[in-house]
Amino acid sequence: MSKARRKSTELDLGQRDHLARKAAEEPGLISFAGGLPDPGLFPTRELGRALQTALSDTDALQYGWPEGTEQLRAYIAAGLAARGATVTADRVIVTSGAQQAIALALGVLPARGIIGVERESYPGALDLIKGARHRVGALADTAGAYYVMPSVSNPRGQRMNAEQRQALLERATRHRALLIEDDAYDGTWFNGDSSAPLLAEAPERVFHVGTFSKTLCPGLRIGWLVPPPKLARRVLRQKQNQDLQANSLAQALLERYLQGDQFDRHQRRARFRYRRKAAALMRSVARELPDLRFSAPGGGFSLWLEGDFKIDEKALLAASIDAGVAFDPGYLFRSLPYESFALRLCYSNVAEADIDEGVRRLAATLANARGVNRGGNGRRRSVARTVQARRQ
Amino acid sequence: MSKARRKSTELDLGQRDHLARKAAEEPGLISFAGGLPDPGLFPTRELGRALQTALSDTDALQYGWPEGTEQLRAYIAAGLAARGATVTADRVIVTSGAQQAIALALGVLPARGIIGVERESYPGALDLIKGARHRVGALADTAGAYYVMPSVSNPRGQRMNAEQRQALLERATRHRALLIEDDAYDGTWFNGDSSAPLLAEAPERVFHVGTFSKTLCPGLRIGWLVPPPKLARRVLRQKQNQDLQANSLAQALLERYLQGDQFDRHQRRARFRYRRKAAALMRSVARELPDLRFSAPGGGFSLWLEGDFKIDEKALLAASIDAGVAFDPGYLFRSLPYESFALRLCYSNVAEADIDEGVRRLAATLANARGVNRGGNGRRRSVARTVQARRQ
Repeated sequence: MSKARRKSTELDLGQRDHLARKAAEEPGLISFAGGLPDPGLFPTRELGRALQTALSDTDALQYGWPEGTEQLRAYIAAGLAARGATVTADRVIVTSGAQQAIALALGVLPARGIIGVERESYPGALDLIKGARHRVGALADTAGAYYVMPSVSNPRGQRMNAEQRQALLERATRHRALLIEDDAYDGTWFNGDSSAPLLAEAPERVFHVGTFSKTLCPGLRIGWLVPPPKLARRVLRQKQNQDLQANSLAQALLERYLQGDQFDRHQRRARFRYRRKAAALMRSVARELPDLRFSAPGGGFSLWLEGDFKIDEKALLAASIDAGVAFDPGYLFRSLPYESFALRLCYSNVAEADIDEGVRRLAATLANARGVNRGGNGRRRSVARTVQARRQ
Repeated sequence: MSKARRKSTELDLGQRDHLARKAAEEPGLISFAGGLPDPGLFPTRELGRALQTALSDTDALQYGWPEGTEQLRAYIAAGLAARGATVTADRVIVTSGAQQAIALALGVLPARGIIGVERESYPGALDLIKGARHRVGALADTAGAYYVMPSVSNPRGQRMNAEQRQALLERATRHRALLIEDDAYDGTWFNGDSSAPLLAEAPERVFHVGTFSKTLCPGLRIGWLVPPPKLARRVLRQKQNQDLQANSLAQALLERYLQGDQFDRHQRRARFRYRRKAAALMRSVARELPDLRFSAPGGGFSLWLEGDFKIDEKALLAASIDAGVAFDPGYLFRSLPYESFALRLCYSNVAEADIDEGVRRLAATLANARGVNRGGNGRRRSVARTVQARRQ
């Protein structure tokens, strides 16, 4: 999250939130947390030009329709059609980000149903699924619906292979289950390949979720949902009840910005940068954290690291922030009880030059914490001092 | 809703929605529907300048905190403090419009509780209250919560008097009920007076709802909610679950636009124009629709008209759209069963020069419909033809 203008707030969301806020206030902190895109990539000049054109039409400031503007929905539909899903603009609902798209999809599913999820998944979806309305299950379970990220997974940055897709589709068909396909990271695949969405194969049972947050910028809060046709009216009514419509300003801005090929060029530039950062992070981690396993991501913003030991992840995060580095603790991403340590490191929003130093700080804090776990406090203090000194 | 780029959609929300979409496509239609501000008032030049400054900071495009930006919350808190409610920025949650603020407030109330509402109220709130989660009650009922618009009511454009306020506060205290205070039209009171919010008198039991939609422009989708302190964390968690945060771009824009006195000057200009349009509409209605009662609004965007007869409001709206005029049928605003005819006419978004003609078309259609109700189809066709001819 943004470091600027951050202050403590009474509106505390608990310890995890507290640590995120603390990290944002820490001067010189190197953050691998949050899944934020690199703001250095934001095409502010092009967006500024698009905004000036958009403002010449009062539609950019007036109320709009709950499903979003015709032109933007047509753009989204064309993108899906190019990937093999024959979707018309009429089926697309523009949402206030992918998060709202997921919330709307879950909101029209029967109460107290099981939602099957991958072993590791997006915390914003897990928070919703673990809420009062649903029960969380595994992908192998018989479920009323499955929430998945087939194109680029979060936190692993990997793509579902053909067998996994086929098995999932067959399971959904067999159980008459719905599929929530979260495609938020589509467009970040390093080599530029895009996969066919599940929507192409099972249009009648897929909620397709997308967003401009990862490929362009998240501050616009523009995502989309293509619901199964038979649920479209209920979803749209719920969208209208929740917030009437996605903001008109960003929709008008996008309509202008998406003309021509500047978005394609932007995405190529972004993929190149993220791929380079991912490689740098993998090198650092292999060197500094040899005890942790990871697989190379093919896209996305992050590396998923796992250890064969157990540790208090919250305490480690707190100590890490004191030592000038932040990450996303593994428990946030885990749907089921777990034993071993894991964490997500996002390379997306960290300066390339800071990656090595950030990983060294993390390695020192982790070694310290594991040392403490094995007994003895003396080492802890000395490592903490070393880390503090490095941060200057 | 915006007339531009309107097309039919598969995402039909039912007959009422269908009619609104039909109206938007009707060339030359005069619309008294929708509660839209006058786009001719939008300060596009000033907003454009604010946007250019906002874009110089990548915060305008990046993720932000679920409660919104510090500076915008401070502005909102200062506005409430000036009206007698001593609120700090820490208590304000920036929402995706007032609609989301109402949805969040209702979302943390116990399921299946009674929500007491005024005889006529805002349809967007009634839709939520009439949904599966709550039961609708009257303001005089014993209820778990009351939803009210004390500052400027919708559709009547009137202010709760001191006795009504006192009675409501006492009832809420007696029943330990919460109050959802929808202040969406605050700032539109014609003579510029602002009333003290209920929040000033019962901070521990009021959800205070506000927005920039009516005073500035709705396309930004920026509103706010001040929840009772003991529910603040639950509300914020729900906000985060629903859509992470209100859009950063509009928040950054508002931070810049709200500096200096340009918003005050804008609001004075707007109040002056709305008051003049309200007067013109009242003159037209008194002349053309003498059978309908109304009280002069003190602010807001609309006139609430009531008749002593019954009529099929949906059929009347359909016929009116064919005759080139649209309005909001009364049933949308009514919480309880009703017998007599009512409708809302918004003067806000109609050109002053069109008011007389719009009311004449409505009067002709209504006379026609009442004639048909009394038997006989011949008159209907001839009036419809007359109206069609006028529209050319």
